[in-house]
Amino acid sequence: MTFGNGYNISNVLFIGDLYSSHHVLREVGYSFMQIQDIFLRYENDLAMVEKFIEEQQQSYVHLIPEITGYIINSGGKRLRPLLLMISSDLCAYEGDRRYSMAAVIEFIHTASLLHDDIVDHAIIRRGKPSANSVWGNSATVLVGDYLYTKAFKVLAEDEDPAVQKLLSITTTTMTEGELIQLMKMGEINASERDYLSVIEKKTAVLISSACAVGAILAKVPESKVEALTRFGMRLGMAYQLTDDALDYVAEEEEFGKAIGMDLKEGKTTLPLIRTLKKCSSDEKALIKRVLGSEDVKDSEIKEIISLISGYKGIEYAMEKAKEYILEAKKFLEPFEDTIPREALFAISDYIVERKL
Amino acid sequence: MTFGNGYNISNVLFIGDLYSSHHVLREVGYSFMQIQDIFLRYENDLAMVEKFIEEQQQSYVHLIPEITGYIINSGGKRLRPLLLMISSDLCAYEGDRRYSMAAVIEFIHTASLLHDDIVDHAIIRRGKPSANSVWGNSATVLVGDYLYTKAFKVLAEDEDPAVQKLLSITTTTMTEGELIQLMKMGEINASERDYLSVIEKKTAVLISSACAVGAILAKVPESKVEALTRFGMRLGMAYQLTDDALDYVAEEEEFGKAIGMDLKEGKTTLPLIRTLKKCSSDEKALIKRVLGSEDVKDSEIKEIISLISGYKGIEYAMEKAKEYILEAKKFLEPFEDTIPREALFAISDYIVERKL
Repeated sequence: MTFGNGYNISNVLFIGDLYSSHHVLREVGYSFMQIQDIFLRYENDLAMVEKFIEEQQQSYVHLIPEITGYIINSGGKRLRPLLLMISSDLCAYEGDRRYSMAAVIEFIHTASLLHDDIVDHAIIRRGKPSANSVWGNSATVLVGDYLYTKAFKVLAEDEDPAVQKLLSITTTTMTEGELIQLMKMGEINASERDYLSVIEKKTAVLISSACAVGAILAKVPESKVEALTRFGMRLGMAYQLTDDALDYVAEEEEFGKAIGMDLKEGKTTLPLIRTLKKCSSDEKALIKRVLGSEDVKDSEIKEIISLISGYKGIEYAMEKAKEYILEAKKFLEPFEDTIPREALFAISDYIVERKL
Repeated sequence: MTFGNGYNISNVLFIGDLYSSHHVLREVGYSFMQIQDIFLRYENDLAMVEKFIEEQQQSYVHLIPEITGYIINSGGKRLRPLLLMISSDLCAYEGDRRYSMAAVIEFIHTASLLHDDIVDHAIIRRGKPSANSVWGNSATVLVGDYLYTKAFKVLAEDEDPAVQKLLSITTTTMTEGELIQLMKMGEINASERDYLSVIEKKTAVLISSACAVGAILAKVPESKVEALTRFGMRLGMAYQLTDDALDYVAEEEEFGKAIGMDLKEGKTTLPLIRTLKKCSSDEKALIKRVLGSEDVKDSEIKEIISLISGYKGIEYAMEKAKEYILEAKKFLEPFEDTIPREALFAISDYIVERKL
């Protein structure tokens, strides 16, 4: 296991001073773990989740494993299952239900991606043609439905009302978030507050639930479930804020999607909202014309991206994301200083530092 | 309350001979109740279901009540909630859970209609523009998802594993049925067996579950739950067979959809399957050209409809539907001769006799 800056854990443990300075820094939420270390620690658990997903997506209807396999295996980072593994670990739960519950959350996530691709008329998802551009809207709607209903089937068999209630409210809220986003498509006057409310619903609640379920399975006191719920909510906000910021900076090869996609789709995300607040009325008019329009020149997109850059829209969004991460970490204070706690700190940092 | 042929119940009860001959006929599954009598008996119950539906479809996201209201109030017959009311009544359950559970089933049904309209590229549903042609595919996908997740939220709060398991398997099966149908679109060689398997999954299982849930709520012995499950499955088969037959005979004004829609959409239903089995190779070539093609003349549709009529495809399908109804009724034999049992007989007859 390798700490940040390349220290090997076996060395570090024998260098008392360095270790204790690490310890102090960890106390204030600084993590020396790297994302690879975390995946290494939970490798076997994540393999169990994969196995469960693989079994559940089998169907005599061959389109089901074909499409779900295509999207589930298309380079998703399994962030939500990983968070569930770590939060179970943090709360000392070692039972098998974490595998099925992580699969349920990944199914809900994947179903929502499939349906989003229809909503967004997406052509590309994670650098590959989107499911709807390969199989059409019809099959994509139905396979999304299959994954949603499969998730609830696994939940019904699991027979835990607390998890069922949490995840059904989560899914309802996600759909509401997606609908609000749809209704605000092309809206030039969207406020920062509107935007934050949408990303909370469409993204943060599921990430929050992934963290909460780990604690629910462990049957820890309510206060700890709540702390992890709140941690996850802020982590989820930071995650989507970063995603939306990266939409304006990432290159197609490194992020798996074209630059300025949200702008083309008419989604007013924070970098643009910030720019709209600062820019001149001529610049606003250009953005208004381009936002969600079907007839846009590449030069116009580039012009808006350089406006966003000029008005520091991306930095602004990333500052916000980092604030959420700081807040998130505070909710982990009641937990003992253990490896899973450090892993959550490390993921928190990773989320706002990642380039892909 | 009016019996068939216009006899008023108060008269009938005083004419001993007539009453006992009715009684004998009822014993063999013949019903003197009319569909209006049934709706009258369950009027208050159905109003309670409506109230629950109305409450649950409220959301601060105005598109949700707008679209769900549009489709839920667009002249649906509430067959599934009615069946649940009658089967609860038959099993002597009078609690409030029948209202919420009936709403759950209607939500699942409505969600599947919304998503089907996307799959079928439907323009018209029940004589009105389909939701997707009014609000577009994006909103329709999401509002369908909202209804599915709302259904599971109500089920989670209800905390009955038996109902949850039944309805989650039901919904998964429905999606599989829709996917198989999609994969067989335009398939000229679909067999009667393929067709029956699709309608069992996409339609009959939910109707069957509506009947079963009434019995589960009443906590009657397993054998009665099973009897109502089997009754409902056959009723559902007859229902879809009749629907598909009516697609070739109904006038737009009376059935709420254009004639030969299934043919245009490429769905090989039983009247066509029967015709394909009987017709000449020239006629088969015409059907093959037209089935699901986008470029079809009205005269060709008319020609195929008259082929189906000539080969008695509709009569064949209706015979099959009636066989299912006969089978269905047999499963009600273990139940005492009560008004709800007669109501189920009457609905069975109505399903294969209805013109709209």
